[in-house]
This record gives sequence, C-alpha cells and structure tokens, in this order.
Amino acid sequence: MNLLKVDTLEQVKQKLDQYFKNMDRMAEEIPLFEALGRYLAEDLMSETDIPEFARSVVDGYAVTAKDTFGISDTAPVFLELIGEVKMGQAPDQVVSSGKAVYVPTGGMLPQGADAMVMIEYVEKLDDKNIAVYKASAPNAGLMNKGDDFKAGQLIYEKGHRITTKDIGMLAAMGEASINVFAKPSVAIISTGDEVISIMEDPGPGQVRDVNSYVLAALVNNMGAKVGLVALIKDSEEKLKLAVSEALNRNNIILLSGGSSAGEKDFTAKVIDELGKPGVITHGIAMKPGKPTVVGVIKNESCCCHDRANLVVGLPGHPMAAIISYKAVVEPFIRKYFFACEEEDQTISARITDNIHGGKGRETFTLVKLTKDELGWIAEPIHAKSGSISQLRYADGYIRTSNLTEGINKNQMVEVIINQL
Amino acid sequence: MNLLKVDTLEQVKQKLDQYFKNMDRMAEEIPLFEALGRYLAEDLMSETDIPEFARSVVDGYAVTAKDTFGISDTAPVFLELIGEVKMGQAPDQVVSSGKAVYVPTGGMLPQGADAMVMIEYVEKLDDKNIAVYKASAPNAGLMNKGDDFKAGQLIYEKGHRITTKDIGMLAAMGEASINVFAKPSVAIISTGDEVISIMEDPGPGQVRDVNSYVLAALVNNMGAKVGLVALIKDSEEKLKLAVSEALNRNNIILLSGGSSAGEKDFTAKVIDELGKPGVITHGIAMKPGKPTVVGVIKNESCCCHDRANLVVGLPGHPMAAIISYKAVVEPFIRKYFFACEEEDQTISARITDNIHGGKGRETFTLVKLTKDELGWIAEPIHAKSGSISQLRYADGYIRTSNLTEGINKNQMVEVIINQL
Repeated sequence: MNLLKVDTLEQVKQKLDQYFKNMDRMAEEIPLFEALGRYLAEDLMSETDIPEFARSVVDGYAVTAKDTFGISDTAPVFLELIGEVKMGQAPDQVVSSGKAVYVPTGGMLPQGADAMVMIEYVEKLDDKNIAVYKASAPNAGLMNKGDDFKAGQLIYEKGHRITTKDIGMLAAMGEASINVFAKPSVAIISTGDEVISIMEDPGPGQVRDVNSYVLAALVNNMGAKVGLVALIKDSEEKLKLAVSEALNRNNIILLSGGSSAGEKDFTAKVIDELGKPGVITHGIAMKPGKPTVVGVIKNESCCCHDRANLVVGLPGHPMAAIISYKAVVEPFIRKYFFACEEEDQTISARITDNIHGGKGRETFTLVKLTKDELGWIAEPIHAKSGSISQLRYADGYIRTSNLTEGINKNQMVEVIINQL
Repeated sequence: MNLLKVDTLEQVKQKLDQYFKNMDRMAEEIPLFEALGRYLAEDLMSETDIPEFARSVVDGYAVTAKDTFGISDTAPVFLELIGEVKMGQAPDQVVSSGKAVYVPTGGMLPQGADAMVMIEYVEKLDDKNIAVYKASAPNAGLMNKGDDFKAGQLIYEKGHRITTKDIGMLAAMGEASINVFAKPSVAIISTGDEVISIMEDPGPGQVRDVNSYVLAALVNNMGAKVGLVALIKDSEEKLKLAVSEALNRNNIILLSGGSSAGEKDFTAKVIDELGKPGVITHGIAMKPGKPTVVGVIKNESCCCHDRANLVVGLPGHPMAAIISYKAVVEPFIRKYFFACEEEDQTISARITDNIHGGKGRETFTLVKLTKDELGWIAEPIHAKSGSISQLRYADGYIRTSNLTEGINKNQMVEVIINQL
C-alpha cells in the first residue's frame, strides 16, 4: 500500500515560518478611493479630536437646556433670538439663559449653549423672538468635541483589512492617501493532459480548466493579485520553464492539477530542480487536499533582502484545490504579506449530518447554510471532489481537528464564512 | 411648525417606475476573469451534460463493484490488470468481471466498470495482476455523465450577481466571455460651505468631506461605477453648472449635504431648473433620511431611447446619507440597471434595546452584531447622526415598517447584512 508521508497543517506552518519570518513586507501609498480591500501597513491614530468642535446635528436653535425644562405644547418658553450661526464659521454669539441662536445642521455650537431644539418645535414670532414648545435635555441634538474619537487614540492596527465601513472613518481622519501593504503577485499554472482551455469543447476524457478561474477569483478576493495564468500540458520541460519564468516576477506560484499520486512526483521534481530548499512537504494530513505539495525557492541572486518564493502544488479537483488554497495559501499570504491576524468570521449552526473524524488528519467540509425557527442549519456538501455545480451552494466550511472523533448530526458547529 | 410634506418609500418607488420602467438596459461582453461582482444580462443554460463522460475522482482501478463485495484486508480478490487509461483520452479497454483497468484521477471510466478502488487498497502483484483489499460500492470513486448538471438545464437567471462561488461553474460551462449589464455611472457631488477636502485641516466650524468617500465605496461595492467626484461650495450657480455637466456623462447624480431644511430648497431649485419633470419627491417618510430630495431629468435630446437621469439630494450626515442611499438609490440601480431581484441577505438576532415605532415613517437602525450562547445579538447604534466612528461597528441594519408600534427589547429581528 502506497500511503504518502504527510505533515500536519501546523507542521507546514512551522516549516514555512523558518523561511519567511524575516521577510520584509513591501508597502505603498495609495489614494483613499482605491483603499477598499487593502491591508494597512501601519497603525493609525487620530491626530485630533473628532469632531474638533461641538456641533449641531439638527436644524434648530441652540439654547441652555435648563430654560426648556417643564415646558409643553400648551406652555411654551419665550426666548430672545440673538443671531444665526453660518456654516463653516465660528459663531460670535454667546448663549445665556433666556437667549437662543439659530444653528443649521452641522453648524458650530455657540459658547454657553448646551442643547439644541429642533425647528419643528419652535415658533418664530418675529426677528428677535421665538417660542419653544418642547423640552431639550442637555446635549440633545448635538455632538461634543471628541465625541467621535479623541486625539492620539489608536483607531486601526497594522494589518487591518479596509472595508466599506472604514472608509468614512479614514476620510474623517483626513487620510487622503493610505499606506498599505503591496499586493503579492500570484502565478497560477494549470497542468494536466486532460485539461483544455475553457474556450474549447471537451473531447472524450477532457475537462475544461476550471481551477485557474476559481483560484484567480480567490486570489483577487483576498486582496492579492494574479500575475500570470497559464495552462501547461504535462511535459516536465515545459512546466519547468513556465515555473522558472514565473518565479522571476511572482511571489507565489500555484500549480494545479499535477499533484495527484501519478503526477505528484513530477511536480515535486520540477520544484526541487528550480532551487533550494525545494519541496518541504510532500503531502498534508488533511481531507480533502492530501496530495498538496509545498515548496520554497530561495532567491540567492537578490543581494539585499532575505527573499524566498512559495510554490504550491494543489490537487486537481476544484473542491480539493479550493480547500487546500484556503488552508495553506491564504493564511500564508495574510501572515507574511499583510501582517493580518484578524480571526476568521464564523457563525454557529446545527449540522444536518455526521462528519467522520480526523483519523490523524484535519477534515474540511463545505456546507450550505439555511435557516429555520431555531437558527442556522449547516448542510454538508457531500459532492464528489470533482463536482463543480455543488460549489456554488457552499456558504462556508467547517474545520474538524485531527484529534476529534468527528461531529454528530444536530451538534452545533462553527462555520467559517469569510471570503468563500 | 415647519413639517415637510413627504412620500413613503413605496410612493417614491412607484413614482420612479413611471419614468424608468421602459428604459433599455445596456449590456456588454467581458472576459470571465473580470466577471466577479457583475450582473448577468441573460439566462444561462448548460449546453452539455457536465461531466460529459463518467470519470474517476481517485487514483485507482476501475472494476465491477460486484467483484469486490465481501472482500477484506485478509481476504482480497485477485483481478487481471488489462491496461491503463491515459489522461485526456478515451479508453479502449472494456472491464468485465475479473478484470481491472488503472485510471488516474480525472481519467475517463472504461466501459463496463461501475466503481473505482483507490490505489491505497490495492497491491500490484505484477504487470498483469492486482490484489484488491477493500470493497467498493457501485459508483464509488467516480462521477457519472451529467452528475454535475444536465444539458439544457437553467443554471443562472438574468440579473444574478456573480460571486466567487459562481466562477468555477461558469468556467465549467465554457463561458469564457460573459454577457453582463453595463455599470451605470454615478456622479457624487458634495456641497456645503462647511465641507472641506479631506486633505485640508478643518478650521472652526468646518468638517472634512466624508460622504464622497463613503458613497463612492458603496457605489463600487454594489457593482456600479463612480463617474465623477466633486466638492462644490454652496453657490447656486456653481452647483447648477456641476450638475448640468454631470448629467451629460452619468446616469445618476448624488448630491450630498445640501438637502437639510435651509439648503434643501436650493438643491430642489437647481434640480427643477435643469429639466423635466424635476423634483418628484421633497422628502421621504423615513428615519433617518427624511430630507432626501428625489428628482428625475428626462433627456429630450436622445432620439432613440426613453432615457432619464436620477438626481438624489442626500442628507449631509454620513449615517443618514448611507441609509438614504441604501433605501432609495441601491434598490433603484439593482432594479433598473441590473434586473436584479435577489432578496436582501438577512440574519435573525435578538435586539438589546427598544426601537421606537414608525409614526407613519419607516425606521432604519444600524446595529452591531455579536454572539452569545443563544445566537446572534443586535445592538442598535444610537450614535448621533453626524457620528462617523460608530459607523465602522455597523454590521447591518433593521428596517421597521411605518405601520408597527416599534420593537421591544429581546424581540427577534431580521438584520439586513448585504453590502454594508
């Protein structure tokens, strides 16, 4: 029996750490408009209090709250109108008891005032007098200096991935250009005599090159970039040439298709011939994804930096290739290129079927999520590993450790939902 | 008291439908590599069965399952090895009882075989004979013709938004180029004397232009494009000129900042002067977002098509602007430009606080999501509407209809989580 000698995922991580832990990360300045999905290359603090001044968040009148206590629709208070605040200007009026100043939304609060009354609840009697029909509590209708954030406060940590929700904050902080980590370049090379371009019609025994497209989407989605996509028919010479060229201009090379038993040695041989240390892992204790080959090529010609490239031979089946990518390549890129240690997003769900245990290997199970009155339900996708159509129902996946006995039907599980 | 005359969101929708229901949608062909996040402009059927032939999903031996029934580690079955399938080629062997053919992963199944035995469970005795140590059920280790999908099957409907999960499917279908709806162009114009560029340091009473950045991120995120971003100081003449120019090259104009009471008339006046029918809604029965102005400018000079532009005056406060955009602009773009009728993604959560009822208006409440042992918890973000820092904690929002009395603490609510 021909069982592969395999490493656990943890062992693979430790091996990779030797070669990449001292690698310098590249950073670049980009405009805020292009920052969505990028990773911060530095901690960001607030330089000032935001807002920098107390301001109204309604159209209305700045008053002293005490003047309005106890009033009502039928018993208004009458105040003297002493002026109007202009947008973008500091007011020169001072509000004291018995007085009011008109302030439009966003306008700066005059000194002395501690509350706003909305215009809906005010009757303007003439140019100098108003009647207020509703009480305002102190701080009603306004934001105080520093309410949003304080000067010197740590707002974002290095490695944080910028989402839509962060853009407003970064704009408010005045971060017109942002220092982010450079996108590593990933080359995707499909191999296999049976694999044809997706533009061709498959003949008997042939399949379209699905993996290049799936992997490219995953690479782009996580904020790295695709430097090259190629389909190489199984020939050691051609593959070696393609990988060799790809190594010059890319940080990571993904080979897909040539890593299953028969062709695995072939991929491993090419990696070993291209540089040192070559293949560091001949298979991983995971399911699916066992025939994953991991190699490292140190770049000796680069004088100034400790630089190495990662070469991963992924399984040929799309589902296995995706799982292998998610388990090995994505965490690698996040850690060494983006300094991102944010946790995976998970949700708890009830599983509809048993999942068989590790037997010394980690199991990854794609699941479809649905809901019932009790909450989320995770339905394992038991498709054969070559199946594509099931993939589009995968909302996330479950990781089962190599130490557990498996998961029983109806048990609660944590489903990892990020970026699938 | 100066209360605005307002429409409900439903009334706004109906008014818009009059002008846009007959509008032609533009489509374009793009490469599959660029299709992520785009919307399909046509239904997609599978042209063939996928896979087009039965194939192995393991490295092993094609057999008749019956031959392996009842065997075990200690009592193997001995089979004659009659050949090997080459990748990408149709096999010429026929498997019958007592015979086996080697098939690598992805290889085409020879006629007569109905199961695969993995190489791990086979001992190769010599070139012509193998011993099999584990039983295989019929269909084990293989995919049959059409297992993934059948010829003529509807796979995707027009208007579907393409996600990472769809890319593999589209590649398998051979859709190297995809017919998608063109991205509408959205112009974003910020107004307000107090608003300054984010590159400047705010003086007393001034605030940085946050809305342009937030709106641009939301527009890009939903798959539309930003055609123009401008900051115009409050001057009717300048604003009119900017909107007029933007109308020539954009489908939608978003004005932000000039729509609150004092400045609202100003925005409405500019819209009315630029074309017919002009302003169709002077305010919306929603909270926040009430001072939203909706206008339509029909383009008379365009001879061949019924074409109109949407102009929306959004509130100046970032949170109100976002809610208004999500409630009015995003559904508009999805419907008229992308034919997308996919429902909002929601999750059920327990709310931690009371939400006050509609009083004739729909209420939108941003919430932060956390988890406890009972499931999801939605914590309303009660920040004042000018607050930016709270925004980054918003994981979704709750819509409360204009007919309900409000929501009580600990009640279950549906949180809308898409694309925030």
